[in-house]
Amino acid sequence: MQDWGAVAQERLETIAKASEPGPGVTRLPFGPEHKAALEIIAGWMDQAGCTVTRDAAGTLIGRRAGPAGAPTLLIGSHQDSVRHGGAFDGIMGVALGCLALEALGDRALPFSVEVLAFADEEGVRFPTALIGPRALAGTLDQGVFAMVDKAGVSLGAALKAFGGDPEGTAALARYPATVAGYLELHIEQGPVLEAADKSLGVVTAISGIERHRVTITGEAGHAGTVPMEMRHDALLAASDLVRGVHDMARDQGIRATVGQLDVSPNVVNAIPARVDLTIEIRAAEDPARTAMGAALSPLCAQIAEATATQIEIEKTYAQPAQACDAGLREGLAAAVRDTIGAPAPELPSGATHDASAMADLCPIAMLFLRCKGGISHNPAEYASAGDMGQAVSALAAFLSDYSPEV
Amino acid sequence: MQDWGAVAQERLETIAKASEPGPGVTRLPFGPEHKAALEIIAGWMDQAGCTVTRDAAGTLIGRRAGPAGAPTLLIGSHQDSVRHGGAFDGIMGVALGCLALEALGDRALPFSVEVLAFADEEGVRFPTALIGPRALAGTLDQGVFAMVDKAGVSLGAALKAFGGDPEGTAALARYPATVAGYLELHIEQGPVLEAADKSLGVVTAISGIERHRVTITGEAGHAGTVPMEMRHDALLAASDLVRGVHDMARDQGIRATVGQLDVSPNVVNAIPARVDLTIEIRAAEDPARTAMGAALSPLCAQIAEATATQIEIEKTYAQPAQACDAGLREGLAAAVRDTIGAPAPELPSGATHDASAMADLCPIAMLFLRCKGGISHNPAEYASAGDMGQAVSALAAFLSDYSPEV
Repeated sequence: MQDWGAVAQERLETIAKASEPGPGVTRLPFGPEHKAALEIIAGWMDQAGCTVTRDAAGTLIGRRAGPAGAPTLLIGSHQDSVRHGGAFDGIMGVALGCLALEALGDRALPFSVEVLAFADEEGVRFPTALIGPRALAGTLDQGVFAMVDKAGVSLGAALKAFGGDPEGTAALARYPATVAGYLELHIEQGPVLEAADKSLGVVTAISGIERHRVTITGEAGHAGTVPMEMRHDALLAASDLVRGVHDMARDQGIRATVGQLDVSPNVVNAIPARVDLTIEIRAAEDPARTAMGAALSPLCAQIAEATATQIEIEKTYAQPAQACDAGLREGLAAAVRDTIGAPAPELPSGATHDASAMADLCPIAMLFLRCKGGISHNPAEYASAGDMGQAVSALAAFLSDYSPEV
Repeated sequence: MQDWGAVAQERLETIAKASEPGPGVTRLPFGPEHKAALEIIAGWMDQAGCTVTRDAAGTLIGRRAGPAGAPTLLIGSHQDSVRHGGAFDGIMGVALGCLALEALGDRALPFSVEVLAFADEEGVRFPTALIGPRALAGTLDQGVFAMVDKAGVSLGAALKAFGGDPEGTAALARYPATVAGYLELHIEQGPVLEAADKSLGVVTAISGIERHRVTITGEAGHAGTVPMEMRHDALLAASDLVRGVHDMARDQGIRATVGQLDVSPNVVNAIPARVDLTIEIRAAEDPARTAMGAALSPLCAQIAEATATQIEIEKTYAQPAQACDAGLREGLAAAVRDTIGAPAPELPSGATHDASAMADLCPIAMLFLRCKGGISHNPAEYASAGDMGQAVSALAAFLSDYSPEV
């Protein structure tokens, strides 16, 4: 029997060379590295028995047609990387999708399958992302084509030069009844599976996100002349808030992060007069997220009083969670159990994926692969050949057993 | 009877105009504003019955000679300001010293008195300060004259162009037996006297200082993918340290400040991987300061363990406290009590002053004046005419009663 994990590893090593120079992989959309990658992926699709086309949004599509009129199951991820990223994020999902079809050989399925290699999920070159899945879901804002990269090239011009067709993207929207669902295999980008000693995990939902901007106003003062109990120390208030946010998220079983924090005047011998910070909350269930978001105001008020400072908080962003489809999740869980003989843990996805946009079109599901040290977006990003082999087997088993509801 | 407070107010308003353009007062050493200020101060000294000279370090000296062979009591502060500073810090001490002598009229004293207007205490123009008092104390490092300002002018050249004599500064060192002590009147630069509703306070000591540099190393991670209990959040550790340092200083009755804190990578959706921060401790008694300094290492170790981070701490600076002389303090306290009919609170000086350098020559003492809102180094800096009048009366009373130990 073929060692699909070894094949996956070899393929990912090969396609990693389609990269700008520098550490790790740098493959932005609509450049020569993207073109080189699509040539390689087209070969994978061909070996999987697919007919290969490219759509107006630059998505490479490998289609294995089922019976006439049968719905299509989509399997995909993105070809692009961050700058100096790794060899697995995104592209691994495309590779494993092709290999699962290849593993099935000539076996006929009662549905069509398409493997999708989206152009742009990371949003590094242009200040937008997900144009491929959004086009399929019919949610693509045509205004994005006017956005320009650092060199002043618009997204529309870049897509056109790549052989795409900005005007044609509106016609890509799929009719929902023709689509059975969307599956995405992806590295976890977190430490949960590794800590649980599990190779694969079934995603429950793509977490919702909300962001808050907090401004803490204290009073400047000389570090030597103002007694502790007479201070209005903005950083002391910020510190209590960082700890409070952490504990609240931990107690609720969700995630919250103070990632950015700036102190003013930020000198060794001055009591901090002002702190600006951000709070980001992510949760698989929207009520848990919004409840914590609502609890921030009373927390800030309490800290402001205790530290004799003023705290203003403003919600700047909110994005609802996208639940994974129960039926697809059960199918993936059964396939993992049958293939590797152990149950797959369930876990939320804290990060956004192509699946987030595809959820506007059809039921979605995701399978996560264990990620070494939780590291991603970094040259050290790594998933083992063994884990990838298990994922190929599980996906092939899923495809063998799956029958779309009609 | 003359309203000395009103006179002080008027004089400080006048000399505040010896300033570079812009908000508040900007009077750096050895420039035209310094020259203009010394002409005004020479007038004050003259009205106080002093003989006026300028020494090689640019210090203006007004001397009222006592009996032959009698020691000299020095009263002084600095003429310079920070950029966009106030009209009181430093210069008020010079003005009130002159007015106290003027208030004594022709009354003969059993000692000589000199009022000193030092050139440079703030260290704004050159990366050094206190050359006047250090020259008198014999502690001036001659290497400082090679230091240059932003325009590339050396301190030595600037002093020479101002009529000073860098080579001559070594000869300024006073013989300790000829000096009875050094008194400095200064705005508090803090909120203690205002909060206590007192116009004047007797300084117990100029606080010692130590500074520590702390580096906290956590682990970068995606804000969405890493559960709270698996994080190595450098900012969470820093927050616990800020709170711990605050509480420790408060409990010990001393002062400690985290003034500078920098987060890396400092983006909204990344768990902070590293935080660099500073801790400054100030205490009137060295054992209290060094005890807290020594307690930082175990505190860091405990926080590092609780937050699964690494914390390195390094002491970067230490300056011992300078106690004020018990006899001079008692004399000032008695003078305040006799003059305004109420006891003067005792308080440490958290900031460094010319007196810090003079402590290497002779006993020192300081009288603080209430400072509106605790604000200094700012155009809003303010001490009232009433408080200044009380300070003049108290200093005159001190001089009347004082007899140097011989």
